[in-house]
Amino acid sequence: MSHLDDILKSRRDTRHFTKDEVPDEVIQKALQAGHWAPSVGLTDATRYYLIKSAAVKSTIKNLFLDYNKKAEELTDNHEQKEHYKSLKLEAIEEAPIGLIIAYDRSVLNQFTIGTVGSNEAVKFSSVCAAQNIWLSLTEQGYGMGWVSILNYYQFKKILDLPENIEPLGYFCIGKPATNYDNQPMLQQLHWKQKSEAPDCKEIKTTVENLIPNLNLNPKTANSKDFNFSTQLQDKIDSKTKPIGALGTLETLAFQMGTVFETLNPKIINPAIVVFAADHGIANHGVSAYPQDVTRQMVTNFLEGGAAINVFCKQNDIQLSIVDAGVNYDFPTNANLINAKIAKGTQSFLHLPAMSEAELQLCFEKGKSIVEDLARKGSNCIGFGEMGIGNTSTASVLMSLLTGFSIEECVGKGTGVEDEKLLQKQNLLRKAIENYTGPAELKQQLAYFGGFEIIQIASGMLTAFENNMLLLVDGFICSTAFLIASKINPAIHKNAVFCHCSAEKAHQKLLDYLNAKPILNLDLRLGEGTGCAIAFPILKSAEVFLNEMASFESAGVSRK
Amino acid sequence: MSHLDDILKSRRDTRHFTKDEVPDEVIQKALQAGHWAPSVGLTDATRYYLIKSAAVKSTIKNLFLDYNKKAEELTDNHEQKEHYKSLKLEAIEEAPIGLIIAYDRSVLNQFTIGTVGSNEAVKFSSVCAAQNIWLSLTEQGYGMGWVSILNYYQFKKILDLPENIEPLGYFCIGKPATNYDNQPMLQQLHWKQKSEAPDCKEIKTTVENLIPNLNLNPKTANSKDFNFSTQLQDKIDSKTKPIGALGTLETLAFQMGTVFETLNPKIINPAIVVFAADHGIANHGVSAYPQDVTRQMVTNFLEGGAAINVFCKQNDIQLSIVDAGVNYDFPTNANLINAKIAKGTQSFLHLPAMSEAELQLCFEKGKSIVEDLARKGSNCIGFGEMGIGNTSTASVLMSLLTGFSIEECVGKGTGVEDEKLLQKQNLLRKAIENYTGPAELKQQLAYFGGFEIIQIASGMLTAFENNMLLLVDGFICSTAFLIASKINPAIHKNAVFCHCSAEKAHQKLLDYLNAKPILNLDLRLGEGTGCAIAFPILKSAEVFLNEMASFESAGVSRK
Repeated sequence: MSHLDDILKSRRDTRHFTKDEVPDEVIQKALQAGHWAPSVGLTDATRYYLIKSAAVKSTIKNLFLDYNKKAEELTDNHEQKEHYKSLKLEAIEEAPIGLIIAYDRSVLNQFTIGTVGSNEAVKFSSVCAAQNIWLSLTEQGYGMGWVSILNYYQFKKILDLPENIEPLGYFCIGKPATNYDNQPMLQQLHWKQKSEAPDCKEIKTTVENLIPNLNLNPKTANSKDFNFSTQLQDKIDSKTKPIGALGTLETLAFQMGTVFETLNPKIINPAIVVFAADHGIANHGVSAYPQDVTRQMVTNFLEGGAAINVFCKQNDIQLSIVDAGVNYDFPTNANLINAKIAKGTQSFLHLPAMSEAELQLCFEKGKSIVEDLARKGSNCIGFGEMGIGNTSTASVLMSLLTGFSIEECVGKGTGVEDEKLLQKQNLLRKAIENYTGPAELKQQLAYFGGFEIIQIASGMLTAFENNMLLLVDGFICSTAFLIASKINPAIHKNAVFCHCSAEKAHQKLLDYLNAKPILNLDLRLGEGTGCAIAFPILKSAEVFLNEMASFESAGVSRK
Repeated sequence: MSHLDDILKSRRDTRHFTKDEVPDEVIQKALQAGHWAPSVGLTDATRYYLIKSAAVKSTIKNLFLDYNKKAEELTDNHEQKEHYKSLKLEAIEEAPIGLIIAYDRSVLNQFTIGTVGSNEAVKFSSVCAAQNIWLSLTEQGYGMGWVSILNYYQFKKILDLPENIEPLGYFCIGKPATNYDNQPMLQQLHWKQKSEAPDCKEIKTTVENLIPNLNLNPKTANSKDFNFSTQLQDKIDSKTKPIGALGTLETLAFQMGTVFETLNPKIINPAIVVFAADHGIANHGVSAYPQDVTRQMVTNFLEGGAAINVFCKQNDIQLSIVDAGVNYDFPTNANLINAKIAKGTQSFLHLPAMSEAELQLCFEKGKSIVEDLARKGSNCIGFGEMGIGNTSTASVLMSLLTGFSIEECVGKGTGVEDEKLLQKQNLLRKAIENYTGPAELKQQLAYFGGFEIIQIASGMLTAFENNMLLLVDGFICSTAFLIASKINPAIHKNAVFCHCSAEKAHQKLLDYLNAKPILNLDLRLGEGTGCAIAFPILKSAEVFLNEMASFESAGVSRK
């Protein structure tokens, strides 16, 4: 066994330290080892923070305790819970030195080699540095313990780390008090056994990546006969109220009867599906929020804390969340529908956001998600979206598909300030000018599209084909509707426009679509919240048509 | 410099290999080194795939080329682009061995130590393994190059990797053809210079992690207190959404907190009270419906067949019906609140609609009905009305109390045609001209008022005194509110304007009242239907304020 092997093998994730000090030279040597680690595109993004203060350590310890309690509650198995509680998983206060290894996300603001497939390479470089430091400390007779059980958001807050600095965790450094019988501590304590040998297979062939052709054959509107429409209008007019006095509710009731092809339409298993994806264009500063917020909000959706969660719960709407292409690997979660095309689109400033194969895949995924809901008996689906940067994508698509100038199609998104609005317009104008492809829908969608926007457009077409009522939310979803309606104009029949957004381009788009939205509440949140908030009004249309007395049944005089 | 330091320092991201084979023992030893890497919670999630086949390599090379082309286009700088194109960033086909280092995401399906703060720890363990392999190969005289420029989605597809396997990249392994003058290749080629030393700072203090304490005792909160308003607004702004993105819902939530004097406002026992009465002026043909329809509709309310019944049922609102002065003797009915002043008012064309004693009685009845609801624990009351001819009464009162001409205050009511509109205006103008009493509120109300309108105005004042939220419906109820606000302007604080009616004078009155209604659905039915239909939106304001996660609790970045 080589000297290196000895070090590699004896390196431990240490949670037990002696009280011995760690000399500065040891730390410096270890950090130099970290500095020799690879750095993707020579971005040099790794940052180190040392902690010696007992007060700082104590504050961090409290953060750990908070999340460790949360971790305990993640298992229902009593024995496992007790075992877990008995484990020592940190040494924050005992270890003489605390180290934070972090990376500076802002290096991605410049052109960076090696990050086009995934910007995680920057993060990985810092992890390699962590491993080098670990090995160096081991060689020097010291140990390190990686503490990852932290609320990173609060961790950054209390340490006042800049927004662009992302810590990998808190690392405890000191003289090890034990070598855990030369094995991982969790193995020594019989939590788990590590496999004897690495898991390795040889790959001898590749499979062909077959993607079928985009089928844009629209189903046309199935208009019931004239008689049916007359009967439906008669039913509405027979209710004990002046003719037309329920305004928009009467229009909605008529539409519902027409779409469901019955005089007694009922909404069954209403659903809202939120499609989330990242956008390469977000790297150019078009949003006030970092791209990571897409991931954070998906987690928030899954945990029930977002606006769309509480509104769906309020109104008994089934909520589904789709990963259409978020720049993050979510753990397997039964509540997250995996329709990931890639970890975000490419920036369409200079090159296509996605390939035509990816576009095709978006259409397939969106279709299958809605077909699944239809199969489960839902006849009413609302579409929502989440994706930092997606107002930029939507603005460009709106401009291309309507002919309005980009200035008319660009709004402030979720909070871009005035001076930035001009930058955003200029950037998007440039992106449109850079496009040299044909003025064909398919090519334009692939070049500019967002994964979630295309999946929604496809889902809307599928909802129409399944005679579902489809609820359109704000600006992004209306753009998806615009795409869908270019493919099949008949889709209008089934669309309910839920609200007019505070995003100024939305009113323009609604006018273009000849759509009259139900609400005008200055919402500009997305997530399908407009659909969820407007939903009870749709229900009001349903109940008045089905439950109100007629003049005849109530014995009320018509005028 | 230690032996380890030598290895750490000489490890290179290698893109140039000789044609020498790599013996199996070398790979096995390197993979064993990887296996000694840390594994969070002993998840053992790292997976390896070896590639020797030229055909497989060639397919992967094509994937690289596709994305490398994208990368080229990411820079606008011509010189940088040319420099980039000259760089050799992979050796997929030349390197004798290809290795894929991946992690198995599915380990997260079980309870996993160390992943509660972020599940990235699993991924990081595999990156540590990659670094170990790199070091082991370096010690053995071999080299490795990490290729990350790939479309990972397609990469997985063509290699037929299971959905739960996430590759870190493609790693080229072989005998290095150069050591790049003992520095990173990109540095040797002057792409960038790596910094001399690691970037390390000491953190000596923490900042206070300010999370607003939202569990204040609501009883001690004082709505006039600036502090309370700030806390309430802070709570609204702390929710996981851009500031202001819920538009009107945020205004409503703020109002609800202010009225109920708590940061956690809840609507309790919401009620709608419909006040019905007849109007002597109806005898002059101002309505399209006969007066008897008031009685018929009260019966319809009691039997559950009217619009307000189905909407209250839909939205769990308790409905009460008040006979404030219908021109009919109803049989005793527990569900009909008897507040009858008389069998309809007199026609105000030539004489007072009611006496001052009757006016006083209206105030008393309205007050006692609302006090009763408040005693039963309701903190939210919507007002509705029914009364053939009451738009005429409301128009006159609006004209007198606002100073607008009668023409500006008269609408079509529930269906008067154009030629009749002029007659109606003339009639009402004449009635106003006939009035010779003082321009005092009390006298004007007695002369023109409707029983239900005055009772509603009184009820609104009482609701305000009981810290209730009061919901204002359409034109008639807004006129009642106008009366109430002339008596106590502070009442505005508690008023929610539910909709803007299709009755044209309503918009004018709302503007006069500086009121922004929630809905604009062309309703013109009355009965409190606007309140009932808008109610779920009020609930949405309540639930977002109480149930949504905050940026802090959800770990979402603020902008």
